[in-house]
Amino acid sequence: MSVWPILEDDEMPEAARAVADDIRQTRKTDFVNNFWRVLANDPALMKRTWESLKEVMGPGELDPLVKEMIYIAVSVSNACDYCISSHTASARAKGMSEAQFGELLSVVGMASETNRLASALQVPVDEAFKQSPRAPNSPKGE
Amino acid sequence: MSVWPILEDDEMPEAARAVADDIRQTRKTDFVNNFWRVLANDPALMKRTWESLKEVMGPGELDPLVKEMIYIAVSVSNACDYCISSHTASARAKGMSEAQFGELLSVVGMASETNRLASALQVPVDEAFKQSPRAPNSPKGE
Amino acid sequence: MSVWPILEDDEMPEAARAVADDIRQTRKTDFVNNFWRVLANDPALMKRTWESLKEVMGPGELDPLVKEMIYIAVSVSNACDYCISSHTASARAKGMSEAQFGELLSVVGMASETNRLASALQVPVDEAFKQSPRAPNSPKGE
Amino acid sequence: MSVWPILEDDEMPEAARAVADDIRQTRKTDFVNNFWRVLANDPALMKRTWESLKEVMGPGELDPLVKEMIYIAVSVSNACDYCISSHTASARAKGMSEAQFGELLSVVGMASETNRLASALQVPVDEAFKQSPRAPNSPKGE
Amino acid sequence: MSVWPILEDDEMPEAARAVADDIRQTRKTDFVNNFWRVLANDPALMKRTWESLKEVMGPGELDPLVKEMIYIAVSVSNACDYCISSHTASARAKGMSEAQFGELLSVVGMASETNRLASALQVPVDEAFKQSPRAPNSPKGE
Amino acid sequence: MSVWPILEDDEMPEAARAVADDIRQTRKTDFVNNFWRVLANDPALMKRTWESLKEVMGPGELDPLVKEMIYIAVSVSNACDYCISSHTASARAKGMSEAQFGELLSVVGMASETNRLASALQVPVDEAFKQSPRAPNSPKGE
Repeated sequence: MSVWPILEDDEMPEAARAVADDIRQTRKTDFVNNFWRVLANDPALMKRTWESLKEVMGPGELDPLVKEMIYIAVSVSNACDYCISSHTASARAKGMSEAQFGELLSVVGMASETNRLASALQVPVDEAFKQSPRAPNSPKGE
Repeated sequence: MSVWPILEDDEMPEAARAVADDIRQTRKTDFVNNFWRVLANDPALMKRTWESLKEVMGPGELDPLVKEMIYIAVSVSNACDYCISSHTASARAKGMSEAQFGELLSVVGMASETNRLASALQVPVDEAFKQSPRAPNSPKGE
Repeated sequence: MSVWPILEDDEMPEAARAVADDIRQTRKTDFVNNFWRVLANDPALMKRTWESLKEVMGPGELDPLVKEMIYIAVSVSNACDYCISSHTASARAKGMSEAQFGELLSVVGMASETNRLASALQVPVDEAFKQSPRAPNSPKGE
Repeated sequence: MSVWPILEDDEMPEAARAVADDIRQTRKTDFVNNFWRVLANDPALMKRTWESLKEVMGPGELDPLVKEMIYIAVSVSNACDYCISSHTASARAKGMSEAQFGELLSVVGMASETNRLASALQVPVDEAFKQSPRAPNSPKGE
Repeated sequence: MSVWPILEDDEMPEAARAVADDIRQTRKTDFVNNFWRVLANDPALMKRTWESLKEVMGPGELDPLVKEMIYIAVSVSNACDYCISSHTASARAKGMSEAQFGELLSVVGMASETNRLASALQVPVDEAFKQSPRAPNSPKGE
Repeated sequence: MSVWPILEDDEMPEAARAVADDIRQTRKTDFVNNFWRVLANDPALMKRTWESLKEVMGPGELDPLVKEMIYIAVSVSNACDYCISSHTASARAKGMSEAQFGELLSVVGMASETNRLASALQVPVDEAFKQSPRAPNSPKGE
């Protein structure tokens, strides 16, 4: 059971309903998932989270499916069941094949294993990896 | 200081040297990084880890650069400094632009934030996300 | 299903029942929650955990509600569903408003995001933050 | 060494310099810490992160010092050394005594311990904690 | 509900069925648990994971029960409910007493607590712990 | 640099010095490591932590070396560099061979990998693992 109620549109504070409308419009769907319906109880939190998410997951340097897969990788690492479910569904909707999902899992599994080995053995960073910091060239057109 | 010594090739047990040779050949470079030189102290662990990694990071369903970015996302989530350094270097070597890196970071950051919100609020998974399980169709040619 | 049984008072070993009594007395309630009823299967572990918790969560330098909110922040970061539920209930019982809870979540979310950004970018600690260590002045009346 | 360079003000893209100016004005100090100087390489990421942080850490339902302590609790749980350093410095600047810091650490430590015990024992959530969800009453004046 | 279907033997691709047979033979039981039945949807992932696991959990330097307890400790730290359940069952099957389990939990709890204290206080590693790296003497007969 | 100073014995508050003396006596050594010398700034926290640790790591159901290895497994999972260093040193002092350490690492690595796979695939717990809870028989002589 969620800590805050799952709000139907007509139960939402007005500021939250406007966010829900923007979610529908941006995603071109009538469906607004529970995450947002719960966040709607705190319209300021809902609005800030949605606006950041919309910007981050919108058109940019990376393919939208790649971003969903990165999102899954993080959600698995943080053991967030809700987020694994919702972003696996999103990735499938964006065309992720099950074979791609298997490969994503393989990478997440290997990384989790070698991360722990490197930490446990306290491997010092190679000189070759201490590259001079590189400034992005005008990222995002700035 | 690493827990085990960083072995030069001529200090490695024979079984480890064979793995080091395969790393060089597979990666088409003379460089073998410290992670492997430390693991070389336990040739069975080194061999098993390398063979899995070679298979996982080799040609498959996902672009090699996408795999490196997923690797970075997991390494950041696990706070593994060595792995962040080594896989950021690998990703750059495979063509990751700094603008892409910035977008990768943006996704990792957003996912970390929303993961915690969803867990804290105990949001129940939407029925729409409870898809019937899907079998991959003959993944990887099986 | 819990790994150990949830013990009613009359099923508890004597040493555990004494701890349960102290929990009731300290909290001024008849209710002893499942966490303790399961731990009661190992009275030494139950006793040590309770005595530490009683000391830590008892009167001190921080407001009891602040401590509950810190407890929630850690439980969310560790993805412990039971602990999120129990400490959210405790915090509400101690007067946490839902608006305060929303702000707590906002801080936890932001911290999770910036933690990952700082780790990924390997930002070096500013000289200004390398303050000389400060000795607490006689903490807790020592 | 940071992955991106630590930019002086005159090296920042214009959009980043505007954020740096807002940081100085908001915090009423000339000091802009490395986290922002590194993020400045991606002005869109810097701007979004700062605007969210400014809103979250600004005046609200919780005491500013309480928010800093929650930030520390999360940063410790995520093993983010930079964030522990920077937010411990901020908390001290906002008046945190060393005795309060000791108590904060005590709570973080206890929570980490009991989180793991509850997870390991798979303690089911008490009926008493399955409270009906509560809607915040007009949080933040909405 | 699992993301991929839980395959009966006759639904598995041939390569997966061979792995399932090896699991039965190695473990001397007819029972193949859900973890493998789900992984069977990606035979390459299933095979690689099983072969590594068989090698790691097979006869070696550490007692099989000790390995199961280490497995539980990691699974608790990663909040993996499935793995806690399956490896607690395995450890019991290998003779773990409930009193030993209680002591395992006590160590996991204490480590979780002191880990956070050491990180928060940024305790520098003692010179005495900076031992020269030690090469294992011919580990595993190499 | 530690957040609190590393106290020499004659700088410690009296209550902390008594704990330091007990550490020396219990461990039969003159050496008190930095973790305790920093905690000594908050004698109540130091005392509570030491007394719990002494009880947990003292004689019991598990071999002292096994307990150290479990401690390392948790510390690696929590990415606590100090704790990895100090407990690896302790385990070596208690007789851990480098080959045993390699096997410990192998188990930690495998568990980290399969934990993430099980979480990502949302594998449901097998009925066979839903054992009836078992009460420990008189743990620790109660």
